[in-house]
Amino acid sequence: MFSTEEYIARRAKLKELMGSGLVLLMGNEEVGINFEDNIYPFRQDSSFLYFFGIQTNGLAAIIDLESGEELIFGDDPSIDHIVFSGPIESLQSQAAKVGVTHVKSGTDLSDYLGEAVSKGKKVHYLPPYRAEHALKLTDLLHVPTSKLKEQSSTELIKAIVQLRTIKSEAEVVEIEKALNVTVDMHYKAMEMAQPLIKESDVYGAVSQIALAKGVGTSFPPIVTINGQILHNHYRGNELKEGDMLLCDCGAEIASGYAGDLTRTFPVSKKFSKDQKEIYNIVFEAYSTAVALLKPGRLFLDVHLAACEKIVEGLIAFGLMKGNAKEAVAEGAHTMFFQCGLGHMLGLDVHDMENLGEQYVGYTDTLKQRTDFGFRSLRLGRALEEGMVVTVEPGIYIIPELIDLRKKEGKYLDFVNYEMLEKYRDFGGIRIEDVFLITPEEGGRILGNRLPGSAAEIEEFMLSHQRL
Amino acid sequence: MFSTEEYIARRAKLKELMGSGLVLLMGNEEVGINFEDNIYPFRQDSSFLYFFGIQTNGLAAIIDLESGEELIFGDDPSIDHIVFSGPIESLQSQAAKVGVTHVKSGTDLSDYLGEAVSKGKKVHYLPPYRAEHALKLTDLLHVPTSKLKEQSSTELIKAIVQLRTIKSEAEVVEIEKALNVTVDMHYKAMEMAQPLIKESDVYGAVSQIALAKGVGTSFPPIVTINGQILHNHYRGNELKEGDMLLCDCGAEIASGYAGDLTRTFPVSKKFSKDQKEIYNIVFEAYSTAVALLKPGRLFLDVHLAACEKIVEGLIAFGLMKGNAKEAVAEGAHTMFFQCGLGHMLGLDVHDMENLGEQYVGYTDTLKQRTDFGFRSLRLGRALEEGMVVTVEPGIYIIPELIDLRKKEGKYLDFVNYEMLEKYRDFGGIRIEDVFLITPEEGGRILGNRLPGSAAEIEEFMLSHQRL
Repeated sequence: MFSTEEYIARRAKLKELMGSGLVLLMGNEEVGINFEDNIYPFRQDSSFLYFFGIQTNGLAAIIDLESGEELIFGDDPSIDHIVFSGPIESLQSQAAKVGVTHVKSGTDLSDYLGEAVSKGKKVHYLPPYRAEHALKLTDLLHVPTSKLKEQSSTELIKAIVQLRTIKSEAEVVEIEKALNVTVDMHYKAMEMAQPLIKESDVYGAVSQIALAKGVGTSFPPIVTINGQILHNHYRGNELKEGDMLLCDCGAEIASGYAGDLTRTFPVSKKFSKDQKEIYNIVFEAYSTAVALLKPGRLFLDVHLAACEKIVEGLIAFGLMKGNAKEAVAEGAHTMFFQCGLGHMLGLDVHDMENLGEQYVGYTDTLKQRTDFGFRSLRLGRALEEGMVVTVEPGIYIIPELIDLRKKEGKYLDFVNYEMLEKYRDFGGIRIEDVFLITPEEGGRILGNRLPGSAAEIEEFMLSHQRL
Repeated sequence: MFSTEEYIARRAKLKELMGSGLVLLMGNEEVGINFEDNIYPFRQDSSFLYFFGIQTNGLAAIIDLESGEELIFGDDPSIDHIVFSGPIESLQSQAAKVGVTHVKSGTDLSDYLGEAVSKGKKVHYLPPYRAEHALKLTDLLHVPTSKLKEQSSTELIKAIVQLRTIKSEAEVVEIEKALNVTVDMHYKAMEMAQPLIKESDVYGAVSQIALAKGVGTSFPPIVTINGQILHNHYRGNELKEGDMLLCDCGAEIASGYAGDLTRTFPVSKKFSKDQKEIYNIVFEAYSTAVALLKPGRLFLDVHLAACEKIVEGLIAFGLMKGNAKEAVAEGAHTMFFQCGLGHMLGLDVHDMENLGEQYVGYTDTLKQRTDFGFRSLRLGRALEEGMVVTVEPGIYIIPELIDLRKKEGKYLDFVNYEMLEKYRDFGGIRIEDVFLITPEEGGRILGNRLPGSAAEIEEFMLSHQRL
């Protein structure tokens, strides 16, 4: 929770940025896992949380842009509910803490909106990412489900993106709290990594820290000896000598803010010669990118610089050939670095992703590219003071991708396919930290610092026994 | 996964029990937490899992009751998806393992159903508990969202309840696996419980075991010093001398089966005099109920016997007065035992709860009671060989309920309100184990046995240091 004044100020700025009509923000609902009452951990919608701060399910909020009136719609629990679930702070009292005095029953929302619409007021709402919202919005606004996304308010999206992009000091404090729990998760993973341990054991241990010290993980942790599988959620492998373990995880804390860090470390405590050389290429790309962070710089350019560093390193190593700049221009680096260099982070681990990457990471004049590799770059636009971004270069050797590109006859001038065949099973390496953009420091690393270079990683692995 | 034959046999039995038309089973979808791609752990729908066994999202299955044809609708991942998510077994191959040869694209489902409906075939579907299903079913069957529940198939519900109620030997093996992980979770909780530890630390530790040894928890673990709050998910309290910690948790394993056990134990390693006396009342009720389990016995009668034991104990202790049978007839026991004695357990922790308690736990002639206490009894009907049920009596002293009933002037002949005031903050105690109903043993406890009696609990607490 932030101060009442911060919530009031956020809504005041939103009103300034918006024209006329009503802003409707839907809070999230509970979701049944395998039946209605067995629910997933509740997560409030991030934009609702940003402007209204209440962590209760089933709410909606309205800001009348003309009268300035702010209302929260929802209902206090019944006595039956209190008997089973314990006393709960009244909605009126929770609303007062975020500076809202008008609280109405949830059942009043439909009439309220109906009246507004009949008066010709526009209702600005965000594109739904939960089916419960789609059902509710269709009911409330009489917009067919299939039209909900296209009729959502670009004006509202752009205003919210503008506000949530720049983190307040209080928000940075929360992000650092989340990152510090995340740092503990990584230390635990590095301490545990040794032969005979299973990926799922490390997954359980890092989750434990997030659950005990935060409210859980900010996304399903990736804990894998197959780091080249970017969206890997299989965790059945046993670690063995010579493996690298890639751990990409983050905690979410009570206020809703997310952590997100990645480290890749050797199960045998020391990297093999090849592993260390390729690790160093990734670390070079990481260092190059970090040094380039500053207000005004296009993140797309930082990404391209990291791509070039990766290609230069791989040319020296032998897996690539030719000219690095040309290779990146042709997209040949996507044989090894298939995704984006980073993304914004805040209340969401990929901050505001539900609002649309084109609005969050790009501008009216800088459009997101659609070619392989670049279409996964969530952030391209100029960095601004107060932005919080991840920097996470990697090298991933993906057998399926090698076979595909070979078949297509692609990148023959830049990829040494013959040598690459010998590295088919190398795996993947990623290094990820989180930075606040400031005029003084360019990018200031947030949270307690984890070992980063190969030497630091090895030193930690060699000096720490498994807990 | 079970044998191909077991899946084929389950579907054959379903066909025998059903009349004409099509059975449509919807597999579950992914659900975004705070944006579309940041997803909750995937959980397949339990009935889909029971008959079709495939743990992939976005599937649907059809059984044509006339032709006997069985089809799975879904799509294999694209090459793009494989590049990012690694190789995945084809749907055709997964389907073959459960004895299904007809696999069609997910986009064919709409036409397939449209054609069937145009021929006058009835489509039997289950009531949806996820909004994604509601949206899809409305689209597929042209039933308005608000009518989906009432137009779902009672015939299909009853047939599935009949089948899923009786567990096969292979299912019991899975349930015992889930319970054995759950037993480990409880040992961990008991080992950790000591002053200065927080509820959330224990919550994290029991979750870790479920995540590392299973696929997660079968429901959000309840780990609380306020055991009287039945649906407590606050975990911010620090344990202190004199507290009791109530831990109600379960693991879910890869096959989808659930564990569910509860223990209540003293943070000071030994119960206080009052705690032990009230614990013993709950344990007596538990033992009485367990001894009554047998095929043919109404679970409602077992529940009533446990209620009487609780009242007898509380009369001896002094918190209640009068005649125990009369007290239960009047509902006075619900001052202390507000919920049901147990429920079935299987693929769902409250097995088949989404199919409707009236069909799962009751019969056409034995209806679920609607009065306080009894309306929370999920199972009333006669036990059958092969059923798996929990037995979980408890005593809960709920300040809000005392105040409410006092104001209403209720149970004055049975409750010693004056003495109860002194016990307002006593808390709550529950003991829960899982039993298989057999003709030979009545109720056979499943899984490794945890300490149960107060003496066993204290012995364990005194002899185990925190891990």
